[in-house]
Amino acid sequence: MGEDEGDEFDIIARYFQPLADPVSARDLLDDVAVLDTSGPLVVTTDAIVESVHFRAADPMETIARKALRVNLSDLIAKGATPLGYVVSLQWPRSRPATQIAAFAAGLREDQAAFGLKLFGGDTTTTPGPLAVSVTMWGRSSQRTPARADAQAGDELWVLGPIGDGWLGLAACEGKLTGLSPNDQHVLAARYQVPAVQPAAGLLVQRFAKGSMDVSDGLIGDAMKMAAVARVGLELNLAGLPLSPEARAWLALQPDQAAARQALASGGDDYCPLVSVAPAEAAALQAEAAKLGLVVGRVGQVTADPAMRLLDGGQLPEDGGHRHRLGA
Amino acid sequence: MGEDEGDEFDIIARYFQPLADPVSARDLLDDVAVLDTSGPLVVTTDAIVESVHFRAADPMETIARKALRVNLSDLIAKGATPLGYVVSLQWPRSRPATQIAAFAAGLREDQAAFGLKLFGGDTTTTPGPLAVSVTMWGRSSQRTPARADAQAGDELWVLGPIGDGWLGLAACEGKLTGLSPNDQHVLAARYQVPAVQPAAGLLVQRFAKGSMDVSDGLIGDAMKMAAVARVGLELNLAGLPLSPEARAWLALQPDQAAARQALASGGDDYCPLVSVAPAEAAALQAEAAKLGLVVGRVGQVTADPAMRLLDGGQLPEDGGHRHRLGA
Repeated sequence: MGEDEGDEFDIIARYFQPLADPVSARDLLDDVAVLDTSGPLVVTTDAIVESVHFRAADPMETIARKALRVNLSDLIAKGATPLGYVVSLQWPRSRPATQIAAFAAGLREDQAAFGLKLFGGDTTTTPGPLAVSVTMWGRSSQRTPARADAQAGDELWVLGPIGDGWLGLAACEGKLTGLSPNDQHVLAARYQVPAVQPAAGLLVQRFAKGSMDVSDGLIGDAMKMAAVARVGLELNLAGLPLSPEARAWLALQPDQAAARQALASGGDDYCPLVSVAPAEAAALQAEAAKLGLVVGRVGQVTADPAMRLLDGGQLPEDGGHRHRLGA
Repeated sequence: MGEDEGDEFDIIARYFQPLADPVSARDLLDDVAVLDTSGPLVVTTDAIVESVHFRAADPMETIARKALRVNLSDLIAKGATPLGYVVSLQWPRSRPATQIAAFAAGLREDQAAFGLKLFGGDTTTTPGPLAVSVTMWGRSSQRTPARADAQAGDELWVLGPIGDGWLGLAACEGKLTGLSPNDQHVLAARYQVPAVQPAAGLLVQRFAKGSMDVSDGLIGDAMKMAAVARVGLELNLAGLPLSPEARAWLALQPDQAAARQALASGGDDYCPLVSVAPAEAAALQAEAAKLGLVVGRVGQVTADPAMRLLDGGQLPEDGGHRHRLGA
């Protein structure tokens, strides 16, 4: 972090040691952490990069929280209980090291919210943009549902609102002027800090046959799940779960089907997409209501490997939004 | 990776699935990997960034191998047996996606060499330099020696040659013209692909009390170990273990003490620095000879928390080379 980075012990001691598990993480003063494991761990990794996944002007707190949440979302989609993470920070020489305090504050806030601990990290300067790479692990539930577990005959449900990420980016860029300032603000905040919900993980544990984390746009991600499971999908966006703010936006659009498709193609929503036995759908819906979760049935899994969109739209060739590549 | 990235399934299937553990990594087609663990895991994370840890012109194979080896080195320094890793790749839009094949070939080569498996990953485009962040884990040996385990009275040993990384960078930049072309070539290759040696991990398991991974320069790293262990150090660089190529360079230098200190201050050597009970030193040396490892006694641990350099040099205030910050 430039020549004026201050002493690394000071920075670790002040900002990162308070976030760490003192025993396993060795107070972040060693080369490694030693994890005391018993039974399967679920592991995921995701990075976010300035100008790709967040805006250069975003607050450091929200950048830190987004870096954790895009990983948390993977664990929630697998019904796993988050335990810990390591963070690799690429710090531009042009950013003052004082911003580290805000970054650590963001980590701390979400650690407390989600019961996470920091187990180690690495920080390096970069001549490029700020980038944060997180590897996170959790305790597996009895079964860790795979994308490939979706079967013909299953219903397809989304366990969280869709479209807020895409609308939120537009709000950050001042492009949602038809909406109330409050709605714009709420959506912008959801782009910066995705509203991941651990309660959705309980639904995954109980009801999911196949499950994946939506992150690059619902339609494209659903197509990925279908490809891996070697099934087809019939998507019906009439059932798209929406936040009140997204509903307000939708009400202003002249072409409802096209608008729903845009919401389902945008990225930066982070929630589970699950396939469920039809006999379980009513119980899933009732349980979601108890947990206060916005969920919706968005189609069904078919044996015919074709992809169809029921309300008249055309499926995009590339599945819509894409900024990432990888597992 | 730009608009012309090709289909992500194709890229994963062609280049990365062959590197993955098919069961635990779910063929890289899921959001997570499920690790079957029994007993403690040792975890580390390290990133390398273009123009900081490698040169833009370096071959993709060596970039991939260096990304693995800077992490492997942490595990070896703890006597842990490497098992697996996840890789997060930030791919500049300006780099052709075809270079991914070479990157994967580099991963494959070192996976085979070190018994590693890929468990997942994430690739994103970046407007900045190429960066590779790896999180790696291994099976712990009975005891995982910490930096803090160094005690007054211990001898300090380095389990690998020192200075090749710094000389190698100079060789890459055409600054070692006094050496033979072959020596220059060998050193440049060691900068690009650090010569980590799993056999050194056997010595760690058997002999190390305190242990750390040297990566940012021996002197500075030794000072970090002393600070964490709350001890002092008396460094004697006459015992510095050197490769034949580094010895050839040293022979050309007018001031031997200053030249040794330069070797011990440069970064990009990756090997264990261990503290050893004096009674064990002869056995360590004999075992190292059997394993063909270049090792050397570089000082001792003192109760007096001061740092001293025996052959007349001055300790640098910041411990020498530093491009990284973190655990």
